[in-house]
Amino acid sequence: MANTEPATVTNKQIIFSGYVSGFPKESDLKVTTTTIYLRIPERSTSVLVKNLYLSCDPYMRISMGKPEPLSSSLVPPFNTGEPIIGLGVSKVIDSGHPDYKKGDLLWGVVGWEEYSVITLFPYSHFKIHHTDVPLSYYTGLLGMPGMTAYAGFYEICSPKRGETVFVSAASGAVGQLVGQFAKLVGCYVVGSAGSKEKVDLLKTKFGFDDAFNYKEENDLNIALKRYFPEGIDIYFENVGGKMLDAVLINMKLNGRIAVCGMISQYNLVDPEGVHNLTTILYKRIKVQGFAVSDFYDKYSKFLDFVLPYIRQGKITYVEDITEGLESGPSALLGIFHGKNVGKQLFVVARE
Amino acid sequence: MANTEPATVTNKQIIFSGYVSGFPKESDLKVTTTTIYLRIPERSTSVLVKNLYLSCDPYMRISMGKPEPLSSSLVPPFNTGEPIIGLGVSKVIDSGHPDYKKGDLLWGVVGWEEYSVITLFPYSHFKIHHTDVPLSYYTGLLGMPGMTAYAGFYEICSPKRGETVFVSAASGAVGQLVGQFAKLVGCYVVGSAGSKEKVDLLKTKFGFDDAFNYKEENDLNIALKRYFPEGIDIYFENVGGKMLDAVLINMKLNGRIAVCGMISQYNLVDPEGVHNLTTILYKRIKVQGFAVSDFYDKYSKFLDFVLPYIRQGKITYVEDITEGLESGPSALLGIFHGKNVGKQLFVVARE
Repeated sequence: MANTEPATVTNKQIIFSGYVSGFPKESDLKVTTTTIYLRIPERSTSVLVKNLYLSCDPYMRISMGKPEPLSSSLVPPFNTGEPIIGLGVSKVIDSGHPDYKKGDLLWGVVGWEEYSVITLFPYSHFKIHHTDVPLSYYTGLLGMPGMTAYAGFYEICSPKRGETVFVSAASGAVGQLVGQFAKLVGCYVVGSAGSKEKVDLLKTKFGFDDAFNYKEENDLNIALKRYFPEGIDIYFENVGGKMLDAVLINMKLNGRIAVCGMISQYNLVDPEGVHNLTTILYKRIKVQGFAVSDFYDKYSKFLDFVLPYIRQGKITYVEDITEGLESGPSALLGIFHGKNVGKQLFVVARE
Repeated sequence: MANTEPATVTNKQIIFSGYVSGFPKESDLKVTTTTIYLRIPERSTSVLVKNLYLSCDPYMRISMGKPEPLSSSLVPPFNTGEPIIGLGVSKVIDSGHPDYKKGDLLWGVVGWEEYSVITLFPYSHFKIHHTDVPLSYYTGLLGMPGMTAYAGFYEICSPKRGETVFVSAASGAVGQLVGQFAKLVGCYVVGSAGSKEKVDLLKTKFGFDDAFNYKEENDLNIALKRYFPEGIDIYFENVGGKMLDAVLINMKLNGRIAVCGMISQYNLVDPEGVHNLTTILYKRIKVQGFAVSDFYDKYSKFLDFVLPYIRQGKITYVEDITEGLESGPSALLGIFHGKNVGKQLFVVARE
């Protein structure tokens, strides 16, 4: 059986150069090659995986910043000199854990590298049982971003039929789903995005009632009044800054704002000032920051909800996929400049 | 019985001069004298009252501003040339309403004048049944501010024993109660106020664990870190602006901010920018604006809760009372400069 002995193989990795201030640069993420022995040591409960698809998500910029003085941040910081940590879809090569065996597919927290040794903790990884849908969907529609859209929209915003919904970064990994969920509920939904191509996608592919290119608007307040003459019931916040300020004065009484992300602020050394916060008082608005990790106990419920819609073609998903681990850094940097069209990910290996 | 016939009497009023920009001035509120016939017309369901105590509340500045473009504001604007509308404690002189008879005491919405004809609508007025406590309390501790503190703290903030609570404008009509409620729950509570006298009140009379004068702090962030080295679970927001910005970066994970008021912003033509809103995301914070009027169905529950504490001396209340209707304008203007110590009100008549 000598021919089945595990080998030591090369393992390409994307290494974090150190804390970032302002927009990250390619030099902040360096490709290196090390080796890895393809077997889990005896008595270890770790799992060795081959990474297939890796995900580029805006929250990762937060992990590149200097750690917060109060410890309870949204995400832990990256370690200098070690691989970037992200989410991915992976195949089990060897396992010391009773729940996983060779050949299983899973999604969850892995390093940006060809092979990762992962330690399981609650909700860190989910076994993939449904493979009649694209595997890459588990970095997006069926993974963290999908669960984020589901929890943020249904649990935080409590949408009701006929309500008005505004989504920023609406063609992104989360936004495109929020819009489709809003239509399922029977809401009126408008999205903003940063190019004509994305705006067209919102209207033609994702079924938004309307959409606009925020870069072409001189006054976001006027733009919002055009689409929401009677105001906004629900704002799904992905960007922060000037857009949040304009949204606030257009909110309706008892409006809800789910704060999913504030991508416009992550790369600023001095965050923008938001001036219209008295509206929170005048209109009795709820602004709720949330983290998807608080909702992973509902993941199987989410799958039961969303898989039938996908199979019936009633929910669709657009991905922006690049090839190869080396393409990861520029793919990740690109999302902070709005270069991605849809969910950004990259292929490390197809099987 | 000719000597019991109602008379036409003079009725002094405080008239609203017109929309205010910036800090209100005495000339925005003018004393005038008209007359009133002290009987309700037949078939009217209105109630004629003699006003005893009238209340000066920060929200009244909002009613002085230009009406909002979207109709659903917190409070309706004042009408130019008519009496200021506020809350007060009044005695029924004549009534066309089956629920009220001559001699009854009530608190609720009245004009700033000696006599008002009031129209009842749900929760606009509450009959006063308990007179073993000071009648003036129904403008404060047992009225709208008390109910605001109760609803905002217990309903919006969901406090738990051992949590850390920060209250701004803490010696004001609402703040002094939030601090005492927080101690009843078993929280650690710190308040900020604008003078040594007020800070002393917080520590010696209201039982706050600690307190500071925000005017003596160069850096509010450093001040908050001194009192909350591990962060703030609950912020009861009365002021907005720079204080909110400093609080945000000191909030703990899953913190709650009840937005009761933002008095520092009401008189500004251009509201201040708040920069640390990404904390709402990073720390999964809930920021909830609320209006006491949404909670008035709990008013009798509130009385059942708070009256025993008052009678046992376990809840105390400080009022700042001026004499005479004419003192109303300067009393109201004073609260926007922090001149009041405790709940500001004025006496129109003692019986």
